[in-house]
Amino acid sequence: MFEFTIGATSGPARTGTLTLPHGTVETPVFMPVGTQGTVRALSPGDLRATGAEMVLANTYHLHVRPGEDVIAQLGGLHTFMAWDRPLLTDSGGFQVFSLEGFRRVDDDGVEFQSHVDGGRGVLTPERATEIQWTLGADVAMAFDHVVSGGADLATARDALERTLKWLERCARRHAELMERWKDGKMERSFQLSNFPSFPQTLWPILQGGTHQALREEGLRRILELGSWTGLAIGGLSVGEPKATMYQVLEALEPRLPAPIPRYLMGVGFPEDLVAAVERGVDLFDCVAPTRNGRNGTAFTPDGPVNIRNAAFRTDGRPLDASCDCETCTTHSRGYLRHLFAAEELLGLRLLSLHNVRYLIRLAEEMRAAIRRGGLAAWAGDWRRRYTQPGIP
Amino acid sequence: MFEFTIGATSGPARTGTLTLPHGTVETPVFMPVGTQGTVRALSPGDLRATGAEMVLANTYHLHVRPGEDVIAQLGGLHTFMAWDRPLLTDSGGFQVFSLEGFRRVDDDGVEFQSHVDGGRGVLTPERATEIQWTLGADVAMAFDHVVSGGADLATARDALERTLKWLERCARRHAELMERWKDGKMERSFQLSNFPSFPQTLWPILQGGTHQALREEGLRRILELGSWTGLAIGGLSVGEPKATMYQVLEALEPRLPAPIPRYLMGVGFPEDLVAAVERGVDLFDCVAPTRNGRNGTAFTPDGPVNIRNAAFRTDGRPLDASCDCETCTTHSRGYLRHLFAAEELLGLRLLSLHNVRYLIRLAEEMRAAIRRGGLAAWAGDWRRRYTQPGIP
Repeated sequence: MFEFTIGATSGPARTGTLTLPHGTVETPVFMPVGTQGTVRALSPGDLRATGAEMVLANTYHLHVRPGEDVIAQLGGLHTFMAWDRPLLTDSGGFQVFSLEGFRRVDDDGVEFQSHVDGGRGVLTPERATEIQWTLGADVAMAFDHVVSGGADLATARDALERTLKWLERCARRHAELMERWKDGKMERSFQLSNFPSFPQTLWPILQGGTHQALREEGLRRILELGSWTGLAIGGLSVGEPKATMYQVLEALEPRLPAPIPRYLMGVGFPEDLVAAVERGVDLFDCVAPTRNGRNGTAFTPDGPVNIRNAAFRTDGRPLDASCDCETCTTHSRGYLRHLFAAEELLGLRLLSLHNVRYLIRLAEEMRAAIRRGGLAAWAGDWRRRYTQPGIP
Repeated sequence: MFEFTIGATSGPARTGTLTLPHGTVETPVFMPVGTQGTVRALSPGDLRATGAEMVLANTYHLHVRPGEDVIAQLGGLHTFMAWDRPLLTDSGGFQVFSLEGFRRVDDDGVEFQSHVDGGRGVLTPERATEIQWTLGADVAMAFDHVVSGGADLATARDALERTLKWLERCARRHAELMERWKDGKMERSFQLSNFPSFPQTLWPILQGGTHQALREEGLRRILELGSWTGLAIGGLSVGEPKATMYQVLEALEPRLPAPIPRYLMGVGFPEDLVAAVERGVDLFDCVAPTRNGRNGTAFTPDGPVNIRNAAFRTDGRPLDASCDCETCTTHSRGYLRHLFAAEELLGLRLLSLHNVRYLIRLAEEMRAAIRRGGLAAWAGDWRRRYTQPGIP
């Protein structure tokens, strides 16, 4: 369990197989985001059809509504959202730092105001770990302190120190839960459902902003704290320029332990996936495909397209002729444009479906390119086409 | 083509097989409504999964947006909405009389204000017929003047006379289009796409409000005007009490020609379908299953259920244990409630899907009951359970 086997490599890029309690995942992989226990506008059947291997859900959102106790009574997160393949839960760190409204941070944890009912809540490393254990995802994330992309050295240092202290507490609590589970002594409050029939793993999150020395120090100290089954890179794609993100990844990569998977959180757009895979990243998640889809923007090999464009009014061609998704094999651009003009719900779903499939195919293509040792050539071709001007 | 074969009978109720250019339809049948060329929140694949045999679309809405010319250029309505089974288009009569905003009626037709851009438009019997020909549905409806359920005799008489005059004009125009199509002389404006590869039939609409004498006179005069392949009953379920609607149907039934299918427009709710099938109706359409589904109301054998009810918070049971739809075989009431509480798009779709499947199964069950000659007993049992008090 929680094994990662590296397959082919092409420079820093690599393919891998990640074994988790609910299945194996071929990397590089894109994980669609099911913030509230559903990938917006898509059903579990749609997700399977996109080829999704692993889905992310948000601890903060599910804790606030419906509450992890409700999800436990309904059989745990897998059963609740009818997704029987691997799941990863974010720790809630990013959410409490990025959502609007009151929050107070101290070394113990974060007091926040619920975006649902305005009520006060507290997340600590221990609570975030317990909630994730109750949800029952295959992979839980450590509770972290995220700062914006432009944070100065002192701010980023402060958040890094707190994140490292919190990581120790998360790891301790997670180890306790694992021990009790192994001994069959799990407390009733964590046994409400049938889900703890498998263990869960905890991944640390590396912070440090855009400050290379901090990132390196953070990485060194994380690796000193334990033997991890995966490592997340957080605090990127949070407002800093794309070039800066790529530089941080590039400088970090030689120092990352090769044998464990690297997960770049909250990324991303197609061009970010390609750039990060070239820099040795294995896992990704982002709301971009579904959020953009709901706005009428579709990813295509020729770059993003806004389906509301009047040019598509009588366009009988598929959105993306190279795509095998339900949207592209069934519907014309003209029909999709009509759905958006008429504000029909089906449009939101069809573009979300296509965009998720697009990113999953992109990862598939990169795996194939790495296997044949030609990622650089593939990426050059891909970028030339994706960034060419003009409506496809 | 356009044949209707009666199978079994049970009192006035009967089963039948309606043969149309895009397939055969077993009656009694419920047609989901795709107002704007999409059954709201459902994909063509969802519709097939519900067992839908025939779908309705609205001439008024599609004329206003995207325009029948656009749909013709995209291959006609079947191709446009990716539905390869039978389609019926309403004539636009009901819409121009029921939508908000300006309208002016004279004997020539109706001038109306578009709900999309406020622009003025005109629908006449000839235009409504031409638009429907261009859309290319299997069944077109005559352009009619609809009055509210409480209309007095003079108002209902006036609308009936106009509807009858308009029916003659629709029939004349439809016959001209058919002739030209048969002769291969169809004008270019009606040949933009590949769809006129089959003929279309036109059904009259019986008006007359709740005035029995008017209904009977209207029926007699419609039957004198031609040899129809089907007959619609309009102007019911427009504000009159349900008991009044049932009385009108009951009094009308012995006078309806048995050999052609009877289509009760805009109906309905489960109890209305059962009552109308008992009174000899064969086809139905209504937005109730999708509109109610989007509001969180689900049809079940134990009556309607509002999924937002707090009682369902940790309810792991399916919405309807007897149902074979994706919603009921995949998701718990607790999860569906969460989707509505969290305003997730998937909830709108899952309840719409279930409600459509519910009405289609209801029609299937009635067909089986009629075949075994036991509709009355079945309907008694069904009503007892459907109307019992208490949350299921």
